[in-house]
Amino acid sequence: MDLDLAAKLQQPAHSKIVLCVLDGLGGLARSETERSELEESDTPNLDRLTETSDVGLTMPVGVGITPGSGPGHLALFGYDPYRFDIGRGVLEAVGIDFELGPDDVAARGNFCTLDADGNISDRRAGRIASEKSAAIVERLQAIEIEGVELFIEPVREHRFVFVLRGSGLGEDVTTTDPQSEGVPPVFAKGTDSASERTASYVNEFVVKAAEMLADEPVANGLTLRGFATYPALPQMREIWGLRAAALAVYPMYRGLAKLAGMSALACPGGMEEQLSVAREYWDKFDYFFIHYKKTDAAGEDGDFAAKVRALEEFDKHVPSLAGLGADVLMIAGDHSTPASMAAHSWHPVPFLLNSPFTRGGSVQHLTESECLGGSLGIFPAVEALPLAMAHAGRLKKYGA
Amino acid sequence: MDLDLAAKLQQPAHSKIVLCVLDGLGGLARSETERSELEESDTPNLDRLTETSDVGLTMPVGVGITPGSGPGHLALFGYDPYRFDIGRGVLEAVGIDFELGPDDVAARGNFCTLDADGNISDRRAGRIASEKSAAIVERLQAIEIEGVELFIEPVREHRFVFVLRGSGLGEDVTTTDPQSEGVPPVFAKGTDSASERTASYVNEFVVKAAEMLADEPVANGLTLRGFATYPALPQMREIWGLRAAALAVYPMYRGLAKLAGMSALACPGGMEEQLSVAREYWDKFDYFFIHYKKTDAAGEDGDFAAKVRALEEFDKHVPSLAGLGADVLMIAGDHSTPASMAAHSWHPVPFLLNSPFTRGGSVQHLTESECLGGSLGIFPAVEALPLAMAHAGRLKKYGA
Repeated sequence: MDLDLAAKLQQPAHSKIVLCVLDGLGGLARSETERSELEESDTPNLDRLTETSDVGLTMPVGVGITPGSGPGHLALFGYDPYRFDIGRGVLEAVGIDFELGPDDVAARGNFCTLDADGNISDRRAGRIASEKSAAIVERLQAIEIEGVELFIEPVREHRFVFVLRGSGLGEDVTTTDPQSEGVPPVFAKGTDSASERTASYVNEFVVKAAEMLADEPVANGLTLRGFATYPALPQMREIWGLRAAALAVYPMYRGLAKLAGMSALACPGGMEEQLSVAREYWDKFDYFFIHYKKTDAAGEDGDFAAKVRALEEFDKHVPSLAGLGADVLMIAGDHSTPASMAAHSWHPVPFLLNSPFTRGGSVQHLTESECLGGSLGIFPAVEALPLAMAHAGRLKKYGA
Repeated sequence: MDLDLAAKLQQPAHSKIVLCVLDGLGGLARSETERSELEESDTPNLDRLTETSDVGLTMPVGVGITPGSGPGHLALFGYDPYRFDIGRGVLEAVGIDFELGPDDVAARGNFCTLDADGNISDRRAGRIASEKSAAIVERLQAIEIEGVELFIEPVREHRFVFVLRGSGLGEDVTTTDPQSEGVPPVFAKGTDSASERTASYVNEFVVKAAEMLADEPVANGLTLRGFATYPALPQMREIWGLRAAALAVYPMYRGLAKLAGMSALACPGGMEEQLSVAREYWDKFDYFFIHYKKTDAAGEDGDFAAKVRALEEFDKHVPSLAGLGADVLMIAGDHSTPASMAAHSWHPVPFLLNSPFTRGGSVQHLTESECLGGSLGIFPAVEALPLAMAHAGRLKKYGA
């Protein structure tokens, strides 16, 4: 649904919507058993819920497109993932809970190793230990650049976040990473006047950092890429009239939710705590995004059995999840992460919506194959929120 | 997938993609048996492949739209058939292997019969024999027009191809065909200055041709329509990074493939030769388009039994087709041609994709009805190539 139309159609209600995202939910059959992770797992609670729900498969972005976490979640939050593109630098910053603002340009930084001629000999500085990297970042924080505020924050190993803050900065800045070894880092360039000015700040930083890092044995160079400004996403409250809360353990998902205008509530302890915080704040919000990471982590590790376990562990929380008493409960995935591929994939993702207004169907298990016969068919993930809004009595009639 | 996005996401790989198009594949049940051509045919090899493939139905252009061969194939080649419109004149030219260039405007020509008053009495000149028509075309080839090069080539019966070559020509030229009998041919008009100039060349030709044809007993007039310039399609190599080859017997399909940037390899002998040429050139290309015409020809003839036979004959080649060892094998149709309609139709078309990353499903036969329950659902034909690219490991992740 077009967001302008959404803003026109939305109406207040007392209903509650819960979106529970099982990260990387979709899978593929492993050849030994010809059964997928979902087919192999024993999930009696999810099965019971499935029987009384509308189910289908979401297409996260488009046919054949393997989404990153950004587009995968934004689509479920109702944002056209083609239109709202979150840059790598921004994701990296929100991923460490850095509070990005509208005057910021963020980039992902990598420490690298330069040889005697200044050429890159290791693009990741031997994946230097996080503590060592953090110490070097602290040194770099002393750098000052006139006309702009500078933030450098450690991430993990050789990675750090680089943020420039100032008015009129631009994000169309080319990477300083030559993308190969045996050549030196390159200077950043801007493709419009705001970005040119930004590039000159970047290059000033790079020169000063190079002097400062010259005595480092391994991380004696750096590269910056994925320059991106804070994306001014239309806020969920304004579009959908939803006071939205995020219950996510990992910073990146909290960060993505905050970009959409959600309040990220603290719940570092995992599902049990996430559900308990949801109960605590039940009256304060209309929409709750609950993020479950273990399915994706197991899939990325290529660990089929661990993904099955993650699904079965999730299943134990389903009674509490359903017990929240939401008017609309969605169980969805941001993308597939088949253990057999040990990576995100393009495959459509099982989806379930429970409400008093579902048609239901004959589906017994929330699996890739059974969902094909579900009442929702295969549909774009970006339509999940409008569908939930309808079930929640929060959308007016269209036209007379 | 937007082609700019495709160009950004594509990455090199050693994988091979094969698209085998059974022209006019989709059909309709005949009332006697309530079974379609695909349902009636005995295709054990295709059945076996179907069991381990993702299947669905492609929507060639849009709901209710009956595609010509141009849009039907372009969609399968990844081009939005609404955006990339191949004019009739161009199709007619590529259909006879005429090498169109960027400075050309092509049109379809028809010989017609004029009465004593110069009015059209037969728009197709009694479907004059091809040999006779070719002789008249040869006479017309003597015509010269200052400022532009002129090509006239016979097609079949009363049809010929008319091409103007020169810089700055326009394609927005109106037809000289009044579309009815009892009235004279009309002069061409251009709707912009380049097209006006083009129309004046066209009219000069028409006047000279009229003088030359005055003594012809039947084909004493002509009309021209479907003026179109060479469409500068983005090339498959640039967009998708694919070295693409076409294995098609009929010139029109070779021509369409060439417009997309494919190399059209000679294989006049049919499927066996097409597959053998594919094997011969296996290392030289990443993508092979193999065209099978018999299904459509039988459908167009309204010959249900012949279409069944064409499907069964194709089935005998399936082991060799699968034996090519493609990483991704698609079996598709450019549109439906139900024998009961003896014409192209708008019905969605059975589609199969085989790769190690398919989810598969419960479908046993590649038929219109069973494909409805397939893992791909009904999807736009233009998404077939992105899907194949994903399965071939040739698309990067979208977004971070």
